[in-house]
Amino acid sequence: MQTLSQISTLFDTYLIDNQFNRTPHALYQPIDYILSLGGKRLRPALLTMSCNLFSENVTKSLPAAFAIEVFHNFSLVHDDIMDEAPIRRGKPTVHHKYGINTGILSGDVMLIYAYKYLIWEELGQNLKPIIEIFNQIATEVCEGQQMDMDFERREDVTIDEYLLMIEYKTAVLLAGAMQIGALIGGGSVADAAHLYAFGRDIGLAFQLQDDVLDTYGDPEKFGKKVGGDIIQNKKTYLVLKTMELSSPDVAEALRQHLSASTNNETEKIKAVMSIFDACDVRKHAEILMESYCKSAFAHLDAVEVAEDRKSVLRQIANELMMREH
Amino acid sequence: MQTLSQISTLFDTYLIDNQFNRTPHALYQPIDYILSLGGKRLRPALLTMSCNLFSENVTKSLPAAFAIEVFHNFSLVHDDIMDEAPIRRGKPTVHHKYGINTGILSGDVMLIYAYKYLIWEELGQNLKPIIEIFNQIATEVCEGQQMDMDFERREDVTIDEYLLMIEYKTAVLLAGAMQIGALIGGGSVADAAHLYAFGRDIGLAFQLQDDVLDTYGDPEKFGKKVGGDIIQNKKTYLVLKTMELSSPDVAEALRQHLSASTNNETEKIKAVMSIFDACDVRKHAEILMESYCKSAFAHLDAVEVAEDRKSVLRQIANELMMREH
Repeated sequence: MQTLSQISTLFDTYLIDNQFNRTPHALYQPIDYILSLGGKRLRPALLTMSCNLFSENVTKSLPAAFAIEVFHNFSLVHDDIMDEAPIRRGKPTVHHKYGINTGILSGDVMLIYAYKYLIWEELGQNLKPIIEIFNQIATEVCEGQQMDMDFERREDVTIDEYLLMIEYKTAVLLAGAMQIGALIGGGSVADAAHLYAFGRDIGLAFQLQDDVLDTYGDPEKFGKKVGGDIIQNKKTYLVLKTMELSSPDVAEALRQHLSASTNNETEKIKAVMSIFDACDVRKHAEILMESYCKSAFAHLDAVEVAEDRKSVLRQIANELMMREH
Repeated sequence: MQTLSQISTLFDTYLIDNQFNRTPHALYQPIDYILSLGGKRLRPALLTMSCNLFSENVTKSLPAAFAIEVFHNFSLVHDDIMDEAPIRRGKPTVHHKYGINTGILSGDVMLIYAYKYLIWEELGQNLKPIIEIFNQIATEVCEGQQMDMDFERREDVTIDEYLLMIEYKTAVLLAGAMQIGALIGGGSVADAAHLYAFGRDIGLAFQLQDDVLDTYGDPEKFGKKVGGDIIQNKKTYLVLKTMELSSPDVAEALRQHLSASTNNETEKIKAVMSIFDACDVRKHAEILMESYCKSAFAHLDAVEVAEDRKSVLRQIANELMMREH
C-alpha cells in the first residue's frame, strides 16, 4: 500500500515526464500552463488509491489518472471561457492569457489527449468498460455545466435539479475516477460500482460543504471571499432550501435580495444570512451532507478488500469533510 | 455491394434514428441543428464504402460513420467560433444562432459522442486500433486548425508547412474514416493502411483543387464567391508557389497586394491573378493535384480485393476531382 504522499509524488513525476512540450507550441503551451498551476490533484490521487485497493502495481494506473486530470483541466479551461473568469488558482485563466480561440482549441485537444492517456496501458477486457465509463462521466460533466448555466436564467429550479446538477458537474468525475481505478487494479465490477458510489457521494457532500463554507466559512481558512455566492445571486442549496422552508413572504424577500445588484455588499450578505438563519438552513445542509457521507462510507464498507487497505480512503474523505466550518 | 446512393440512404436513416433530441435541450438542440444542415456526408459515405470493400454487412459501420460525421461537425462548430463565421451551409452558424457558450459546450459534447458512437458496435480486437486511429486524426485536425491560425500571422510559411496543414485540417479525417471502415469490414491492417493513404491523397488533391477553384472556378458552378481567398489575403498554395517561382520584386509585389485591404475588390483580384498567371501557377497546382491523385489510385490498386469492388470508390474520387475547373 502507498500513502497519499507517495501517490502524489508518483503522479507529480508522471506529470512532469508527460509535459505537452510539442508543436504547434501555440496549441500545447497553454496545456502545460494550466497543468502547472497545480490544484489538489484530488481526482488522479483517488483513481490511483482506488487501484491500490486491489493491486500493488499502481504505476499502471498513472496514465488513466493523468487522463482524468487532463479532462478536469479541459473542463476548467472551457468553463472559464463560458463564465468569463479572469483568474484560476491565483493566475490568469488560459483564455485570459492566450485568447479565447486558443482556450477553445487547446481545450479540445486536451479532451482528445484524455482519451489517448486513458487507453495508454494494456487494459484487456476492461478497455471497453473503461471508455464507456469515461464517455458517460464526460457527457454528464458537460450536461452539468449546461444545467448550471440554464439555472442562472430560471426561477423555478428545484432542489432535486440542483443536486443532479452538482452531481454531474462535480461528483461524477470523482466517482468515475475511482471506478476506473478499481477496474485497472483488478477489482470486480461490483466493487468498482461501490467505489463509483463512494466517489459520487463524497463529491456531493463536498460540493454542499462548499455552498455552506461560501457563506459560513472562516475567511482566513476558506481561501475564497466569504459571501461570494450571495453577491453573485447564485441559486445554491442554501437558497433553494430556504425557499422551500420559508413562508411565501420570506421566500419573496429572499428572491428580491438575489435579483437585485447592490452597492453595499456587506449589507446584502447580512440580510440574506439573516433569512438563512431564520430557517436554520445551515443545519439542513449539514444533515444532507452527513447523509451523503454515511452513504459513501457504507459503499466503502461493502468493497470486498481487507479493512486496513481502505484506511487511506477513509482518511482522505474525512480530511475533505473536515475543512473549516 | 451497395451503390453510393444506397449507402447515403442508409446513413440518412441512421442519422434520423439517432437524433440528439434529449435534455438539457439547450445543449443538444444545436447538435441536431448543425447535423440537419446537411453537407455532402462524404466522410461517413467513404467509411461505409471502405467497409463494403470487405464485407456485405455495412450496417455495422454506421455508428462509426456517424461518429466521424459528428466529429466533423464538432470541428466546424468550434472552427466557426474561432473564424467568427456567421454562415455555414447557407444558415446561421451554431454560435451565431445560440451564442458562443453554447457553441463551445455543444461542440464539446459532440466530440464525446463521437467516441460513444465509435465504440458502439462490438469491435473485438479492432477496438483499440480504431480508437487510436481516431485519437490521432482528431489530434491532427486540431493541430491543422492551429497551424492555419498561426499561418495568418506568419510571412515565412513554406509550401511543405502548408501541405502539412491541409493534410491535418482536411485530409486525415477522410483518411482515418476509410481506415476505420476497412478495419470494421474485416480488411487487413495493410489494406486499411492503403485506404488511409488513398483518403489522405484524395483529400490533399481535393483541397488543392479548392484553392484553384476559389480563384479560377466558374462562379455559377463553384458555389462560393470566386476570388474570396485573394480578398481575405489567404496564403494558399497558389500564393506560396508563386512566391517560390517569382523574382524577389514580383514576390514583394504579391506580398504588398496581400497585406493591404482594398476598396476595389475586382481590381485586387485582377492584379493578383495576373501575377499568378505570369508564373503559370495554376498549372503547377494541377500537376501536384494529379500526382496526389496518381498516388491515391496506386494505393487503391494495392488493396487486395477484387477490382470490381473498388469501382464505386474510383467513381467517387473521379467525381470529386471533376468539379468545375
